[in-house]
Amino acid sequence: MCQGDDATCPQFELHYRALKDNLDAERRGFLKSGFVAAGGLATLGVGGASLVTPALAEAAAARQPGERTHHYLPANADTVHWGYFSKTLKPQVEIESGDLVTIETLTHQASDDLERMVEGDPGAESVFLWTKDKKGVDRRGAGTTDPKLYKKGSGEGQGVHVMTGPVYVRGAEPGDILEVRILDCVPRPCANPKYKGKSFGSNAAAWWGYHYNDLLGGEKREVVTIYEVDAGGSKSWAQAVYNFKWVPQTDPFGVVHPTIDYPGVPVDHAKTSRNFDALKGVRVPIRPHFGTLGVAPADADFVDTIPPNRTGGNIDNWRIGKGATMYYPVAVEGALLSVGDPHASQGDSELCGTAIECSLTGVFQLILHKKADLAGTALEELNYPMLETQDEWLVHGFSFANYLKDLGPDAQTEIYTKSSVDLAMRDAFRKMRHFLMTTQKLTEDEAISLMSIGVDFGVTQVVDGNWGVHAIVRKEIFAGRA
Amino acid sequence: MCQGDDATCPQFELHYRALKDNLDAERRGFLKSGFVAAGGLATLGVGGASLVTPALAEAAAARQPGERTHHYLPANADTVHWGYFSKTLKPQVEIESGDLVTIETLTHQASDDLERMVEGDPGAESVFLWTKDKKGVDRRGAGTTDPKLYKKGSGEGQGVHVMTGPVYVRGAEPGDILEVRILDCVPRPCANPKYKGKSFGSNAAAWWGYHYNDLLGGEKREVVTIYEVDAGGSKSWAQAVYNFKWVPQTDPFGVVHPTIDYPGVPVDHAKTSRNFDALKGVRVPIRPHFGTLGVAPADADFVDTIPPNRTGGNIDNWRIGKGATMYYPVAVEGALLSVGDPHASQGDSELCGTAIECSLTGVFQLILHKKADLAGTALEELNYPMLETQDEWLVHGFSFANYLKDLGPDAQTEIYTKSSVDLAMRDAFRKMRHFLMTTQKLTEDEAISLMSIGVDFGVTQVVDGNWGVHAIVRKEIFAGRA
Repeated sequence: MCQGDDATCPQFELHYRALKDNLDAERRGFLKSGFVAAGGLATLGVGGASLVTPALAEAAAARQPGERTHHYLPANADTVHWGYFSKTLKPQVEIESGDLVTIETLTHQASDDLERMVEGDPGAESVFLWTKDKKGVDRRGAGTTDPKLYKKGSGEGQGVHVMTGPVYVRGAEPGDILEVRILDCVPRPCANPKYKGKSFGSNAAAWWGYHYNDLLGGEKREVVTIYEVDAGGSKSWAQAVYNFKWVPQTDPFGVVHPTIDYPGVPVDHAKTSRNFDALKGVRVPIRPHFGTLGVAPADADFVDTIPPNRTGGNIDNWRIGKGATMYYPVAVEGALLSVGDPHASQGDSELCGTAIECSLTGVFQLILHKKADLAGTALEELNYPMLETQDEWLVHGFSFANYLKDLGPDAQTEIYTKSSVDLAMRDAFRKMRHFLMTTQKLTEDEAISLMSIGVDFGVTQVVDGNWGVHAIVRKEIFAGRA
Repeated sequence: MCQGDDATCPQFELHYRALKDNLDAERRGFLKSGFVAAGGLATLGVGGASLVTPALAEAAAARQPGERTHHYLPANADTVHWGYFSKTLKPQVEIESGDLVTIETLTHQASDDLERMVEGDPGAESVFLWTKDKKGVDRRGAGTTDPKLYKKGSGEGQGVHVMTGPVYVRGAEPGDILEVRILDCVPRPCANPKYKGKSFGSNAAAWWGYHYNDLLGGEKREVVTIYEVDAGGSKSWAQAVYNFKWVPQTDPFGVVHPTIDYPGVPVDHAKTSRNFDALKGVRVPIRPHFGTLGVAPADADFVDTIPPNRTGGNIDNWRIGKGATMYYPVAVEGALLSVGDPHASQGDSELCGTAIECSLTGVFQLILHKKADLAGTALEELNYPMLETQDEWLVHGFSFANYLKDLGPDAQTEIYTKSSVDLAMRDAFRKMRHFLMTTQKLTEDEAISLMSIGVDFGVTQVVDGNWGVHAIVRKEIFAGRA
């Protein structure tokens, strides 16, 4: 019988709620209102065709154990890694294919307003803890951890996202495909009683933003805007609370940060000047999603979370939210999925360098497709991360499709010197052609005509080193095809 | 009383239908079914806020004559110009601000299948007429008309779109803004009794397409796909009829065209091999719109229609269809609006070089906003073509915002060597910043934050020399603003 873990059960939603109610209530209690308010689970399996055909789903199911488990992975100093993917990390949870896992994620920008995004929240407090003697999470980034070598801090801020995980999927090996269904995705309520029922996020117009060297008048400045998001789900928009210009901040270890050059530096608002009139009356539609979601790369031990890659990561497509499914080529044993960089909203381009960076909790179902089952299926040749929504399929082009391999031993620094929308457009074109030819069995000529008249190319992001262009094709286009 | 020409009249739709029925029925009869099937006029003035405030609308109305006229501009050899904009052209119709004008447009690709897109249609037959002694429209393009100098044909194919017009707007002067409302937009029914009730379009994957030098296996080939579009409006999709590989075609003057290098060359299907199995079952959602719509530039006498520019032209955004409004900075006396390049559907990027190129008829209302009335309004500083839909505002970035000026005396050839999505993205960013700061009175910091979290950047086209990126902002974002 379905234990609230079989999305194909007709009474799944009912069973799932019962399961949730029975799960350790202490921790989850404060999130529950958000889940319910957000309308419960997405109705997967209903509606649009999936890349996973019934036969492929059956093959995957046959490899799953009879019972599914719903795991819970909180975010705290023990369960997160900050600023890097790594195949060397110890898994936080081991799961079977088909299992569900609820994963809490924290935004790395929470220290822009500790009062609204950290205080009173034990998980966030443990991660952002930073006194003159101790950091909750010392390493932040893929850079050096040698105090004699780093200038900004351990890990050197080469990679910024607080990542929860990794999740080890039993049986996953290179050559397999990991299907990641996002069943739910809700803002993390503020734990400070002063702001009950609200959630908050931060948008930093930072030095790595697309606009930075093109400001009117030529001034260089970084501006942070704090946004309020309704945690209860009754408002579909976010609103600015205030903004402030970044001024040099001294971290508890005594390092001065003249710009936003290291993640998690606690902002001392005694030094800033806050403008509470910012964006008065402007309502930004919310699009909760995970900016960074992916499996561990094989090509390096420590990989900066910023540039997206063949194994996914920081794709920063706002469509990677509730109801969406991602497919990743597995690169290392166990897949090692990590999740972070939660966003309440983002536009295509993420122009100023960040979204509304806002802690979220997601419910995921992970399904492993073994290489041996892929022959003749739509996933057979998939060697890039792709996105499926209820109505659409999307491929993601990058300036370099697999930059860790494409750019040689210095790939992780080289990539930042080679950012280009033009190159990402070229990659998106090639991937969409490949997708249409392999999954829909079109000829090259058919695929190219269709791409011109029925596929939309958009600018995913121009701020992550390895810039992105996505291509969207609607499933209904193929609904009349035998 | 409203004569079917006042979009603010509560009974506008009724009056407009009466007006239409009373207009010269002979010509319009065959189009009528299409208009009705397509659901009548868009309900302008209802719903989303407009850039034109009531005060500005009043100022414009005060300059209009008491009576409005609905003009009709058919497409035939006398009313079209082919492949160029020109301030030297004699107007086809002179109108007052506020007047309506129905404009027929013909696709320049109609000669890919004369049987389906030209035969039996007097307007199209007059335009595409080409015997060994005579061409219906001799000049095609902004190039030389000297038979001793051209190699492909008069105008040299430097510009390809059949443009209907120009429309002269009385009182329009440089510095003014022309508002162009697209009230309706329907496919032109096939006039050949064999294909009654259908419309057809052509998609050419041509040498100027983005894919052309990147075909698998390195082969260079051009492939044309003919699509069927339902003229009655009961189907919302287009379907392929057949495709064929371009083979050298000899035009009636004896010039051989090894590639698609001159517009309107009649395709002799005795020489082609047609594949009627192309894209079986694939249904492409239709998005009828005008690829090329704009006013005459001031910077040159004859301007190639292909690269879009400050004065609009070949923007190739599929959102420029029914219900949309374009705003153009007027560059010459009378504005001289021309319309062409009709599309049944196109994806963002127009990847292979063309859309579903399909003759359409549009109903437009043209409203002149005099420079003297613009002070303090959202249109005051507008020096680029912009698009307003019911729910959105869009700016259009180009590789070069005003290439005719930016690139000097050889601009019309230079532009094709400098195509870049990266440059177009930069221009779109700057224009959206300008738009938000001038029309919504945001500070630069506010505009930049909002662009990152609530504005979507997409790839308009990568095939028109002056490549395009658009930026979309939803009007609802500002609905709560005082």
